[in-house]
Amino acid sequence: MAKDNQVLQSLYQIKKGSVRLSSPTALPMASGYLYNQNMLMQLNCRGYARAQFMQPEPAKYSHGPTLEAKTFIQPEQSFYKHHPGRFFYLKNKDTKQIASVPYEPCRVAPSKYMFDQQLDQIRWEVVYQQVKVTVVVQLANEYSAELWQVTLKNISKADANLSLYPCFSIGYQSWMYREAYYDETIQGVLAKSITPYQRLEDYYANQSLKDCTYLLAGTAPDYWQCDLTSFEGEGGLSSPAQIHAERLNNQAARYEDSIALMQYDLVLKAGSQKSYCFAFGPANNSDEIAQLRTAIFNGEQFRKGAAFSAQVKPVLKLQGDDEFQHFINDWLPNQVNYHGTLNRLTTDPQTRNYLQDAIGMNFIKPGHTRNVLLRSLSQQRKNGEMPDGILLSEAAELKYINQVPHADANIWLPITLLSYLNETNDTSILDELVPFADDELLTPVYQHVELALEYVLNQRDDRGLCLIYQGDWCDPMNMVGHKGKGVSSWLSLALAYAIKSWIEVIENYGGHLIQAVETLSRLNQLVEELNYTVNLYCWEGDWYARGITDDNKLFGVAEDVEGRIYLNPQSWALLSGAATVAKKYTLLNEVERQLNTPFGVMMLAPSYTSFREDVGRLTQKYPGTAENGSVYNHAAIFYAYALYQIGEYNQAYQVITKMLPSVKDIETRGQLPNFIPNYYRGAYFQFPSHAGRSSQMLNTGTVAWLYRCIVEELCGLKGGAGQLVVEPKLPDAIEHLSGQRNFMGANIEFSIEKHTGDSIKLTVNGQEITGNRITDIEKGASYQLKIKVPR
Amino acid sequence: MAKDNQVLQSLYQIKKGSVRLSSPTALPMASGYLYNQNMLMQLNCRGYARAQFMQPEPAKYSHGPTLEAKTFIQPEQSFYKHHPGRFFYLKNKDTKQIASVPYEPCRVAPSKYMFDQQLDQIRWEVVYQQVKVTVVVQLANEYSAELWQVTLKNISKADANLSLYPCFSIGYQSWMYREAYYDETIQGVLAKSITPYQRLEDYYANQSLKDCTYLLAGTAPDYWQCDLTSFEGEGGLSSPAQIHAERLNNQAARYEDSIALMQYDLVLKAGSQKSYCFAFGPANNSDEIAQLRTAIFNGEQFRKGAAFSAQVKPVLKLQGDDEFQHFINDWLPNQVNYHGTLNRLTTDPQTRNYLQDAIGMNFIKPGHTRNVLLRSLSQQRKNGEMPDGILLSEAAELKYINQVPHADANIWLPITLLSYLNETNDTSILDELVPFADDELLTPVYQHVELALEYVLNQRDDRGLCLIYQGDWCDPMNMVGHKGKGVSSWLSLALAYAIKSWIEVIENYGGHLIQAVETLSRLNQLVEELNYTVNLYCWEGDWYARGITDDNKLFGVAEDVEGRIYLNPQSWALLSGAATVAKKYTLLNEVERQLNTPFGVMMLAPSYTSFREDVGRLTQKYPGTAENGSVYNHAAIFYAYALYQIGEYNQAYQVITKMLPSVKDIETRGQLPNFIPNYYRGAYFQFPSHAGRSSQMLNTGTVAWLYRCIVEELCGLKGGAGQLVVEPKLPDAIEHLSGQRNFMGANIEFSIEKHTGDSIKLTVNGQEITGNRITDIEKGASYQLKIKVPR
Repeated sequence: MAKDNQVLQSLYQIKKGSVRLSSPTALPMASGYLYNQNMLMQLNCRGYARAQFMQPEPAKYSHGPTLEAKTFIQPEQSFYKHHPGRFFYLKNKDTKQIASVPYEPCRVAPSKYMFDQQLDQIRWEVVYQQVKVTVVVQLANEYSAELWQVTLKNISKADANLSLYPCFSIGYQSWMYREAYYDETIQGVLAKSITPYQRLEDYYANQSLKDCTYLLAGTAPDYWQCDLTSFEGEGGLSSPAQIHAERLNNQAARYEDSIALMQYDLVLKAGSQKSYCFAFGPANNSDEIAQLRTAIFNGEQFRKGAAFSAQVKPVLKLQGDDEFQHFINDWLPNQVNYHGTLNRLTTDPQTRNYLQDAIGMNFIKPGHTRNVLLRSLSQQRKNGEMPDGILLSEAAELKYINQVPHADANIWLPITLLSYLNETNDTSILDELVPFADDELLTPVYQHVELALEYVLNQRDDRGLCLIYQGDWCDPMNMVGHKGKGVSSWLSLALAYAIKSWIEVIENYGGHLIQAVETLSRLNQLVEELNYTVNLYCWEGDWYARGITDDNKLFGVAEDVEGRIYLNPQSWALLSGAATVAKKYTLLNEVERQLNTPFGVMMLAPSYTSFREDVGRLTQKYPGTAENGSVYNHAAIFYAYALYQIGEYNQAYQVITKMLPSVKDIETRGQLPNFIPNYYRGAYFQFPSHAGRSSQMLNTGTVAWLYRCIVEELCGLKGGAGQLVVEPKLPDAIEHLSGQRNFMGANIEFSIEKHTGDSIKLTVNGQEITGNRITDIEKGASYQLKIKVPR
Repeated sequence: MAKDNQVLQSLYQIKKGSVRLSSPTALPMASGYLYNQNMLMQLNCRGYARAQFMQPEPAKYSHGPTLEAKTFIQPEQSFYKHHPGRFFYLKNKDTKQIASVPYEPCRVAPSKYMFDQQLDQIRWEVVYQQVKVTVVVQLANEYSAELWQVTLKNISKADANLSLYPCFSIGYQSWMYREAYYDETIQGVLAKSITPYQRLEDYYANQSLKDCTYLLAGTAPDYWQCDLTSFEGEGGLSSPAQIHAERLNNQAARYEDSIALMQYDLVLKAGSQKSYCFAFGPANNSDEIAQLRTAIFNGEQFRKGAAFSAQVKPVLKLQGDDEFQHFINDWLPNQVNYHGTLNRLTTDPQTRNYLQDAIGMNFIKPGHTRNVLLRSLSQQRKNGEMPDGILLSEAAELKYINQVPHADANIWLPITLLSYLNETNDTSILDELVPFADDELLTPVYQHVELALEYVLNQRDDRGLCLIYQGDWCDPMNMVGHKGKGVSSWLSLALAYAIKSWIEVIENYGGHLIQAVETLSRLNQLVEELNYTVNLYCWEGDWYARGITDDNKLFGVAEDVEGRIYLNPQSWALLSGAATVAKKYTLLNEVERQLNTPFGVMMLAPSYTSFREDVGRLTQKYPGTAENGSVYNHAAIFYAYALYQIGEYNQAYQVITKMLPSVKDIETRGQLPNFIPNYYRGAYFQFPSHAGRSSQMLNTGTVAWLYRCIVEELCGLKGGAGQLVVEPKLPDAIEHLSGQRNFMGANIEFSIEKHTGDSIKLTVNGQEITGNRITDIEKGASYQLKIKVPR
């Protein structure tokens, strides 16, 4: 199976704004993604698609052949022949040969194949029998619509007598009503359905749903077909009866499996080409579709500006043409912005996700982060408690995991707030008046945060450790403390770190808030107390335990055969300052020994292979997946961030680089380096055959922290009290780094080099300065910053 | 498409205990079904399968490739390549040719094909390349297990070098945990999963779930495979990479799509044969599977008696070898018994279904009907109200449609009760003491029924018509009366008929119950009042309207462009006696003109093609499906039953015969005559292309009433006050009918012939008797009954 590096290097390519794959079979799960304000489409390189739009709850308009369960997005979803997809069958009418672009469902090997993820489009170039087919898809600007352009070019010396058949899955929409047919008034296929319901109240609630699916054609097709069964015949999707026939049958699907299929017959002269446009998406009714048609098409052309471009303006651009730089410049901010824009396709994002995703948005659109903080605080209870999820609309409800009580929601507030203040110096937020969920009393933000911290401080046991209830950051760890006694070492450390962050907020941004010196002194004392208590009760042997169960049993310790060591308490002990120097190197050693793998650092090890009733649901997840010992990148990035804080730059950088596929492991990971997945399979020592496999899931708290690591730590260009604190943390592997950093409206051109001195040297606009802070930064001004760091 | 009758006649065959199909492509949706006390399996003729078992809620153990929505059984479910199935790949190792038995997923045309539904097994005989493969499946006796036997016979003159690969779908079980591998200790594939959950309480609730799927092998396989993706390769299920390879790879599926696959290599000498056995099903854990293995297998053989046989002992056996007789003898009681045994695979059957299904069980196992009545009454409220569903276990809850208030539940009580008493003369039931749901006071059955009728009588409007609330028998008719004013003509008529039934109970079985002559007189007066009121307000033009909406609008009338005429009020006006002679023939004429089709009588016409807000959800169902104007057999059988009551034997018989596919329309209907589906597509005048297509759904109130029609009306051998009332109702098409009827423990051999006289003539054991009642029937005795009816 293993190919040599040269073959692999030609397999994929990263350039500015483009990640390319040159085989439809080498990475069958590889995918790209596009999003706009309203929808996400993840497109498999072979033509399968997953698209969801918000109405405001997430919904689909292209379905599989069964009624699917409504669930949140799941990892490691597989494809199968009838999985929803977007295909273009191609037939040579003279030779009768058929194929499909990009590859599914015919699976005929093309003579050339290129899948190209760009920031605002995905593009295929596929050649079959000397016809080059270029397919480009973008999302519409203001609508839930996929915009497709297909160009056929005859690259042979003879005329080609062809039929092209765009084929878009509709699937099983509803058991109440489903129908699909070609509608001349919209020049396209209209698939109607009614979301199944039985309760009268749902009739009213469902009226606004976009239950129609449309496929609009720029050019009226010669023939069409909507009845899937009749289309397939005995040949199935790979070799459909009606593709082999002269023409499609113009059959409606009437309460039967549906597909949107059109046929264009064309004769392409040698060297000539022809293009077709299509739009595919959901709508409430025919009138809305007619309006969409006007908005999207202009005669035979797509209207200019119809396509969405995220136009992300991140605060950092690195110079260079390596994979790493392209990832940091393009794909990382794109993924951060996806989280900020679509809130993981939910109307009730988990509070911890919502706040952490906003850390990333600091570097793209800090106004967003401000809104996130204010909205979150407006849903806090008067007693300080933050809810498990933040409702984004009036109609939203806490669903799924947000119906389970977790203990960590509060601690993310000061962490996100500090990050926001560091980047913006917008101290006004501290005095913003915000009500509570259960009290209209307008209360300044800083008091909200104080209440939040007090609340968690009060949720501690007699030892002074934080009660975990039915989970903390690790939400499936639901049975450690469900009886009300179990505690979390991680949460205790995270609380200490949150208080440290709050102290930094006060010191750097809130002088006017401090009512007495005692406040700061008490806060510092609380941090020390928490760290002391965790060291007293939770340091066992050579690392920190993960907590103490309801039955007073320390877990995540050497005597545990499974779940012996967890990553998070180690990382956060570094952040909170609990780990003394001796502890620090002992635990780093254990992480390296027990958790590190070629694909990253595992979240725990060994993965649980059987249920542990005093830990809970986590131990029922499949070993090596998700929280049960995968390389869970969100936990890994905490670790990297902590490593930066203690000066372990090389290790930090290693953790980060392992988050992306590389030439040597891309086939194992199975994805392109266009996003960081929430996890790679772990359980490396237990199930090595599966270790490293990507979950293919875009949603992850990783990217916000990673972006922070890159900007503030690796490049060392971090805000602090309105100044730029310069402290690059280059690993051995990086000799120099240069680029452009936007900070508080100023444009900073920076270059970082290593020198033989033992301290940092800065020149600003050619002037050497002392210290490592750039003060008095002017909005709109430009700065040339040359940095030399000790080798 | 249309074949001539001869071809079609050879396509399928009905014999005693057997319905056969000789093509895998002519009726691709044709299926058979098997059930035991705990599960139902509906098996498509090409190898796809739908199986559900009760734990106690319905569940699956063989899944599709996506997480399916939990929903009740839906009509017109389609198949697709990866639909759950049971396949046997066959490879000739010399020629390298592959095929699959019975037909999917390879779809290679066999040289011979036979699908054979028998009462306790389904059997295929398929020949590929001179290897005859016989596959037999039964269900286990006491477990949720499919028992498979496969026999390969070499019918060529040369030795055959073969590989056989049983291939059973496991699919996407869970996003928490899924794994499948071959386990030597059970000699089979073990697929483990954990039903996804997030709430702590569900952990406890889910512990008893049978989340494992097993495929046990009688003979240890040579190789095995559980990772579906690797199995398929680029060839897909139709031409899997690992079938083309020398051997399966012995790969476990670890949190990836799973399949249970085994490989047996064998050399079959010319003329010789070899058999293999397998068991497939759900279990809670490995220990349970080990026990199942012991119970099912005995060495290499299936243990004798392991297979379930329903052993239905119906009260009627007809003589003859026609399709009709075989259906009445075998398939009708089998389908009735399925309903009685499995309660439509729910733990909260709708009250109307539960009680009507029990009408059918009167003729098979009357003790069941007795239990149904007593259980139902024990869930009645003290005020007389029956709940919308009957809970079958302590843990059961009212779900889905049972959370919507319907107005008709009560009226089925006296109807089922009368039917039970007619068949059994078990008057003791009337005095059985039963508590209420909300009152432990033990109260005799007859008072329960009185309260039930009083309750409905009190739910009438000022006119005296029955309020419909959010539906009646027609449960999606939810917006006629949701504001509390709308009324149902059907329910008013059904109440009159229910009271008539109650009067008959009192007169024939409950002399001691009548406290005063006034009771009967009042009841008779109520019937007259109801009939009068319906005639006054709901007869409009030439037929009965369906009701009056909240806004006082009569609907189901000539001025309605859609939903102009409904079948049920016409049928029940015949039953209740509301229809005068003039009305009777007028409405029969309109039913014939507007509702009759070659595939049966439609429930309403024209089908609604757009939403009507004062009728409701019914009008959102797809036109021609289910309650929106299909040939809904349950409504059709009410009509047939009513036709018998008014002496329209020919029409009644026509309605009944249209419930089954026949040579001339079997391709349109798309199913075999082994069951009556809940509907055939209607909207005959609107969408003729789809009219007649079977819903393929076994669950239907039709069969209970049909069995009653056959026994009591067509054969005219009906019980009444402990006597057998003889009144056959032969249509012109039937000259004579003979068979055996069991009544109250006596065995009655009967023959019915037509004569030229104008009244019925009976001889019992050679003695002519006067009148048409056979009295003093002795349990265990035999009677020879010769009946002559006027031509």
